Amino acid sequence: VASLGPSVMQRLVQAFTRLPGVGEKTALRFTLHLLGDQKPAMEALSLALSEACARLSPCERCGNIAEVDSEGGATCSICADDRRDPRQLCVVARVQDLMAIERSGAMRGRYFVLGRLLSPLDGVGPEELPLTRLQRQLEIPGVEELVIATPPSVEGEATALHLAREFGGRVRVTRIASGIPHGGDLEFADPITLGRAMAGRRTLDG
Amino acid sequence: VASLGPSVMQRLVQAFTRLPGVGEKTALRFTLHLLGDQKPAMEALSLALSEACARLSPCERCGNIAEVDSEGGATCSICADDRRDPRQLCVVARVQDLMAIERSGAMRGRYFVLGRLLSPLDGVGPEELPLTRLQRQLEIPGVEELVIATPPSVEGEATALHLAREFGGRVRVTRIASGIPHGGDLEFADPITLGRAMAGRRTLDG
Repeated sequence: VASLGPSVMQRLVQAFTRLPGVGEKTALRFTLHLLGDQKPAMEALSLALSEACARLSPCERCGNIAEVDSEGGATCSICADDRRDPRQLCVVARVQDLMAIERSGAMRGRYFVLGRLLSPLDGVGPEELPLTRLQRQLEIPGVEELVIATPPSVEGEATALHLAREFGGRVRVTRIASGIPHGGDLEFADPITLGRAMAGRRTLDG
Repeated sequence: VASLGPSVMQRLVQAFTRLPGVGEKTALRFTLHLLGDQKPAMEALSLALSEACARLSPCERCGNIAEVDSEGGATCSICADDRRDPRQLCVVARVQDLMAIERSGAMRGRYFVLGRLLSPLDGVGPEELPLTRLQRQLEIPGVEELVIATPPSVEGEATALHLAREFGGRVRVTRIASGIPHGGDLEFADPITLGRAMAGRRTLDG
């Protein structure tokens, strides 16, 4: 159809719709923006994509984004960093979560990215979790604590429980606290969060 | 910084932020989505972008998106279509507007994409409009009517008025109607739209 533009353009619109949250309309807006005198931005994006495709890969140890080295292996900057505390391994659901924890500076150890959470309703059972790879990381000499930082959602809690059962025998398994966020208002907190804040209360040494 | 990921990844995030409405957070979301087992989508997008960059160009006649031909010229499918009514030339602000009119099937003639509207506040004066290129299209034998389909905004009206003054001497200049949209509610229409609906009223032959 003439109104949809040349097929080269339609292919670009379709390619954009594979980005999360991008529908046909947004994809068309991206395409027309770039075609309207933004060719340098277009070339830069094309190059950045092909470069990322060729040179980035999940870290073989933890699943974080890593650059492929000259031998075709991939170890991320955190796993490669000798100054990291070898005693702690922090399990997260997604790379985004790892980044958020890194920004907070609250974890000195290393990470393990699960990539997914248990979700029986969506058909994601324990066999879909990378438990063998996680176990290999736990077997590295010196690991003493598995800090489970999956989100405090139904899926996140189910996953945490499963990991605790699976690995509780060999290392100390801890779970990040759930409660009222910093600056949060008790008045507007949901009952589950309030319940968790109460259940997780700690002794104040005055 | 380790928490931002490898530099190859940072370049991709930066490249995504050049898309309209995409900030750092969305760009990171796009990047991590693609790096999390969406490499085929990533390659497809890279290829579609470089192809579009090399093979698409504004139509030399009307400014619509066109494919570059073997001689390096670019004529869009509408300008190349002999079945188009040569008597009407419809001026629009953006390629998106041309597409919307095409979808409506309400224009049988050809188009001219201005690319911008008069906007004295933003420093866009008449000299920034592609008037010479528009005049060349009006000089094509057979053109009888210039249908101005710029939006009914301050800038769109100012542009329409300027075009009417510039070309009113040589062709019939018409302006698309502004009024209550189909299915619209008078109760919620703004006063300017209601005023235009009244001023643009037509005789009903009963």
